[in-house]
Amino acid sequence: MADYKIVLLKGDGIGPEIVNQAVKVLDKASEKFNFTVEYDEALLGGCAIDATGVPLPDETVAKCKAADSVLLGAVGGPKWDNQPGNNRPEAGLLGIRGALGLFANLRPAVIFEPLKKASPIKDEIIGGSLDIMIVRELTGGIYFGKRGRTEVDGQPAAWDTEQYSVPEVERIARVAFDLAMKRNKKLTSVDKANVLESSRLWRETVTRISKEYPEVELNYMYVDNCAMQLVRNPGQFDVIVTSNIFGDILSDEASMISGSIGMLASASLSESKSGLYEPIHGSAPDIAGLGIANPLATILSVAMMLRYSLDQPQAADAIEAAVTKVLENNRTPDIYEEGTNKVTCEQMGDLVCEAL
Amino acid sequence: MADYKIVLLKGDGIGPEIVNQAVKVLDKASEKFNFTVEYDEALLGGCAIDATGVPLPDETVAKCKAADSVLLGAVGGPKWDNQPGNNRPEAGLLGIRGALGLFANLRPAVIFEPLKKASPIKDEIIGGSLDIMIVRELTGGIYFGKRGRTEVDGQPAAWDTEQYSVPEVERIARVAFDLAMKRNKKLTSVDKANVLESSRLWRETVTRISKEYPEVELNYMYVDNCAMQLVRNPGQFDVIVTSNIFGDILSDEASMISGSIGMLASASLSESKSGLYEPIHGSAPDIAGLGIANPLATILSVAMMLRYSLDQPQAADAIEAAVTKVLENNRTPDIYEEGTNKVTCEQMGDLVCEAL
Ligand SMILES: CC(C)[C@H](C(=O)O)[C@@H](O)C(=O)O
Ligand SMILES: CC(C)[C@H](C(=O)O)[C@@H](O)C(=O)O
Repeated sequence: MADYKIVLLKGDGIGPEIVNQAVKVLDKASEKFNFTVEYDEALLGGCAIDATGVPLPDETVAKCKAADSVLLGAVGGPKWDNQPGNNRPEAGLLGIRGALGLFANLRPAVIFEPLKKASPIKDEIIGGSLDIMIVRELTGGIYFGKRGRTEVDGQPAAWDTEQYSVPEVERIARVAFDLAMKRNKKLTSVDKANVLESSRLWRETVTRISKEYPEVELNYMYVDNCAMQLVRNPGQFDVIVTSNIFGDILSDEASMISGSIGMLASASLSESKSGLYEPIHGSAPDIAGLGIANPLATILSVAMMLRYSLDQPQAADAIEAAVTKVLENNRTPDIYEEGTNKVTCEQMGDLVCEAL
Repeated sequence: MADYKIVLLKGDGIGPEIVNQAVKVLDKASEKFNFTVEYDEALLGGCAIDATGVPLPDETVAKCKAADSVLLGAVGGPKWDNQPGNNRPEAGLLGIRGALGLFANLRPAVIFEPLKKASPIKDEIIGGSLDIMIVRELTGGIYFGKRGRTEVDGQPAAWDTEQYSVPEVERIARVAFDLAMKRNKKLTSVDKANVLESSRLWRETVTRISKEYPEVELNYMYVDNCAMQLVRNPGQFDVIVTSNIFGDILSDEASMISGSIGMLASASLSESKSGLYEPIHGSAPDIAGLGIANPLATILSVAMMLRYSLDQPQAADAIEAAVTKVLENNRTPDIYEEGTNKVTCEQMGDLVCEAL
């Protein structure tokens, strides 16, 4: 019987509440599908700053490295907004991505059938369904490049460096092509190759790797055009692969287009099988502790963990099916619609366990 | 009687057709509002590559510098896609921006009352109107920073530099605050200050300049959040100010949200009064020469020119009113709706002249 070690980084705001529900669901899945899970907890973000002075204590990195996977709630909040840049909760997030080598961020933007009315885009454009997988490079580019202050003509200035090496692009391209092969075999590589040198290297490299995947239909799109096309006709996309910063912007845009932002999960993967899984929404400090947060994105992050890191695809499918079923009649306040039952964070967790 | 010198950069694809109609309208406005216009033409983009080997001949820069303003059609097309990066039509566009010091790009995203059904966003979100002014910094940042190829651990790599100096941010911030003062006194400064050093300098500088504009309500937003908020609730924005690359992405997204992309004009301004005016849409090589292109974005670019560079606000208002009026019953194919007259590019130009 497989035994997995999972580190929980509950984080700040609603983080603890939503992670607790996801753990309940994972426990239930482990009974049903015959594996065991051992949990450990560690600090990241604001709670880590409060307890240790830094957003990413060494102990957290060590624990995560030893685990089969990591489940993260959410980090940040106004309480830590006045910390200096390198000591903010966000720095912890970037730090853990770097420390664990989580170079591939998978961010599905999907519409859940029971929530299809929630998209801000007109029904005739959305056509009732959407299923885009955005593959964002997560440990390179301008988020990890050199930066600093300088002077230009005697005036203060600041700079950041967008940089990509061929191996960095190769490995993220392979992740995207592999995913496309398992989906509709369509990949859009997004860059700004008409201006940026790093984008030209990106495009050359993706083109070369595409030879290994003759079945995948590859096209290229400039980032500005992609930002438009996601609004004009999101259904044209299957898998999108792009740099760290473009992926940040486009995946947030795409998740809003799905209208299901409180429902979306994400996976951050390394070269090894282990990964970090988290909802894409934030720590929502305004509703923290009220017990009304929506735990479904975190529960669906557990499903992604089972699929990508723990080799339990059946358990993953079962959780996703349970969520879709529960959604038909039950809603946390953020996704409430007339005619459904309004439930708390904990009730939602219980309902998913029952449906499992 | 004021006499203006205007350089026409007709460019590629549909560029010549749409500029010709805009010239007709400008001539008509000059009769009505008692000023004269002298035109000169110059080459930019693909047509310049064909004629001279380079996308931005020196003669073009000299002519534009001597003019009161420049009207640009559109540049680029598949014919020149295989040119090396520094000799593509786009390089001509970046080059003329740099050479004329056009640091402030004003890109309104508006919904035209007769076209309000065209937005891909649901009516209950758009609420029938939208009027966002995006102020994009246009001669700095990663589009103009140093870039190159290098090696990392013996592997090829490429890099680009995002850099801003305090004076660069100050002047674009002032343009944005001044515009906000003439509009609804709301300014959103968009950056990624939780990660980028250049964004932190941007934010500090905008904050300092805001003291000169106590009446303007200033808020800050991260670029990823802004990409979401434009979809979730575009009506929350009045003026947005941001860097070159973020402005490129967000203004294209916003223009698509308006649903009126074939209708949107833009102004690129320098420290002097003169500027470059152009439609935001591209050169549409697929329909070039067919006489069916929509000239209204170029005609509205002339209105912006009259307002921002030529001090003829009444003529600007009159052109905008004429366009709105003509739109009620007449449409080029791209914006055709049943119950309206389908007209050609030239007919549309004539109709606007008549309505003036
Ligand atoms: C908090 C921030 C640094 C982070 C990012 O931009 O990577 C977040 O926006 C995300 O997308 O995970
Ligand atoms: C053609 C390209 C270089 C240009 C840019 O990105 O600036 C275009 O997209 C624009 O927005 O004017």
